[in-house]
Amino acid sequence: MAPVAPKSGDAIFASVDRVNAELFTLTYGAIVRQLLTDLEEVDEVNKQLDQMGYNIGIRLVDEFLAKSNVSRCVDFRETAEVIAKVGFKMFLGVTASVTNWDSEGTTCSIILEDNPLVDFVELPDNCQGLYYCNILSGIIRGALEMVSMKTEVTWLRDMLRGDDVFEMQVKLLKAVPEEYP
Amino acid sequence: MAPVAPKSGDAIFASVDRVNAELFTLTYGAIVRQLLTDLEEVDEVNKQLDQMGYNIGIRLVDEFLAKSNVSRCVDFRETAEVIAKVGFKMFLGVTASVTNWDSEGTTCSIILEDNPLVDFVELPDNCQGLYYCNILSGIIRGALEMVSMKTEVTWLRDMLRGDDVFEMQVKLLKAVPEEYP
Repeated sequence: MAPVAPKSGDAIFASVDRVNAELFTLTYGAIVRQLLTDLEEVDEVNKQLDQMGYNIGIRLVDEFLAKSNVSRCVDFRETAEVIAKVGFKMFLGVTASVTNWDSEGTTCSIILEDNPLVDFVELPDNCQGLYYCNILSGIIRGALEMVSMKTEVTWLRDMLRGDDVFEMQVKLLKAVPEEYP
Repeated sequence: MAPVAPKSGDAIFASVDRVNAELFTLTYGAIVRQLLTDLEEVDEVNKQLDQMGYNIGIRLVDEFLAKSNVSRCVDFRETAEVIAKVGFKMFLGVTASVTNWDSEGTTCSIILEDNPLVDFVELPDNCQGLYYCNILSGIIRGALEMVSMKTEVTWLRDMLRGDDVFEMQVKLLKAVPEEYP
């Protein structure tokens, strides 16, 4: 049987159940506000958002693999491209790009110009240390761990801090080779 | 100039920005889990979800009025129908129905058979008092308050508690007549 071809992010996004982006944006905003109230420390909020993202990522990866027909990626380079081109489109309806590779091919940046999470968001002065979109980096870290790639994901640029784009640095710490029976 | 006709829920839903429903579902699940951890008391979590919904509702109503071309509803009956047929479709992609009117036309039930918030959700034994979807009743309460209708919204049936549908009772407490210059 011929292998099933991977679908484009657009095709998948058109075929999955969706909800209104503004509802999602406002709901996410409500979480962040709630965490700021409950935890008080901005650093703790960053940690918590990352952990929530991680927990979502380890489950979302199943939906991703099931709907996208993406099978094994050859290497970390291909994986990063798939996250940017297929993953972001499939879940948030936007496309990201991959850049700034190091020479070993183990560190790159994912760039987001359009990010539905931050529509209508402005950080008040007392939240300047907040990584508002930390749930996204957590999701990527969680999802990659489920396909045996241990990573560290760090925000280098953030439009809420005045940068021109969002830039997440993804660093591959350890790739655990999968074993097959 | 001829008045603009209200759009159907389907037409609006097709035209707004959307995100993947599973991402929304898992994100909402993460909020509820977080609140259960932070607040411990299930009653407090119910209150907090309702309050978060209220805060979302008072903002979402703008998007609703802007995108739906719905103008003034004649009465509470019409308002309830618009929420069920246009509002739920526009934001969650599902349709609700309205039933169980009292004789004064001030209390009715909104019935949801399909609810993306609860996909893959099961309540553990220690959360049996939780109104998992309390954010929805809060949103309706908040949105209606912005169009001068003070309401009380209560869950009568809940599929997570073994009922066959979700049923929210919406009770009009006070309609403040709007004034025009």
